[in-house]
Amino acid sequence: MRILVPFEATDPKTRLDPVLDADERAAFARAMLRDVLVSIVAAGHDPEIVATAPLALADDRLDGVPVAVDDEPLSAAVNDRLGDADAETPVGVVVADLGLVTPAAVERLTDADEAGVVIAPGRGGGTNALVVAHPEFRVDFHGVSYRDHRAIARDVGADVRVVDSMRLSTDVDEPSDLVEVLLHGDGAAATWLREAGFELDAGAGRVGIRRPE
Amino acid sequence: MRILVPFEATDPKTRLDPVLDADERAAFARAMLRDVLVSIVAAGHDPEIVATAPLALADDRLDGVPVAVDDEPLSAAVNDRLGDADAETPVGVVVADLGLVTPAAVERLTDADEAGVVIAPGRGGGTNALVVAHPEFRVDFHGVSYRDHRAIARDVGADVRVVDSMRLSTDVDEPSDLVEVLLHGDGAAATWLREAGFELDAGAGRVGIRRPE
Repeated sequence: MRILVPFEATDPKTRLDPVLDADERAAFARAMLRDVLVSIVAAGHDPEIVATAPLALADDRLDGVPVAVDDEPLSAAVNDRLGDADAETPVGVVVADLGLVTPAAVERLTDADEAGVVIAPGRGGGTNALVVAHPEFRVDFHGVSYRDHRAIARDVGADVRVVDSMRLSTDVDEPSDLVEVLLHGDGAAATWLREAGFELDAGAGRVGIRRPE
Repeated sequence: MRILVPFEATDPKTRLDPVLDADERAAFARAMLRDVLVSIVAAGHDPEIVATAPLALADDRLDGVPVAVDDEPLSAAVNDRLGDADAETPVGVVVADLGLVTPAAVERLTDADEAGVVIAPGRGGGTNALVVAHPEFRVDFHGVSYRDHRAIARDVGADVRVVDSMRLSTDVDEPSDLVEVLLHGDGAAATWLREAGFELDAGAGRVGIRRPE
């Protein structure tokens, strides 16, 4: 299956600013992107990056992954590429900041192929992944997109299936999300964090992160 | 399968204090408990409440669910009841504050029965559900319990399987967690919240909750 991976290449992950500087955010965001792409390839699918600016990924496993540069807003850039997705030629969309993604999690998304639209919700009302198999469905990532995508599917008469996955629901936006990457991630993003000096801080009450000097 | 459901009956969900008073927290916690018990029963299993104080659940569907009162700390109260769990007679544990739980989510936990220990992680390093099928395994809910439970399993030679479920990973502790209940819950807890006046607040940036007067 063709799977679009939108990527903010210019100034990614601004909400991680309290713990990572701009260069670090760029590097960490690319590590998560690599994990997403590698998981898609390992699950037997064909990723396609849709980036806001040109980018190079120094990773042999990803040679040949196409990068389309598109400075339109996210939803428009995705919708321009959905084409006439249908049950024969579904198109997937997976966001680039899933620091816990695995090939098995990608398979849970793509195996649910009897539905017109498969949705993997993110925390807080977002949508972290979709499979679109209905030619009239269009994405809208603005606002409470999980609720909106269900409504759009209803409007065009597409059956919806929801994938219940912690790994797909965990997009990494804020410092507290780094706890999940350190605990459950096993790819480039988790490695990057550890090499940057981050570790779990289980000291006081809730689990956090710390970065000893 | 016998499934233990520990419940703090005296002063539950204190971190919801900013949005719910003590009586409301007691009522909402009992609504989530009911959802957990009903889902376990619907999945074909036998729940057993382990509560810190006596409680009555006014729900016909739950007549006959046993309530053991035990004022020991949580881990000790659970361990006292694991007995000699093994592959023939595994014992489950599901926390009582899973506002998104469904029978299908319970089945994902209990179907993974080839392992010595099945773990459903919670956000932030916690453990929200387990199936124990190894006689030497004991729980320890203090600290980063997901990591600790993996270590305990390794120490006693029990295989571990991790269940990747957003519904099982979402324990409801803080006001921001109520967003998930309003979006994805379809049981007593979601109904209670709506009847108490809560609704999604999608107005500004991140999705939140509000409670109009």
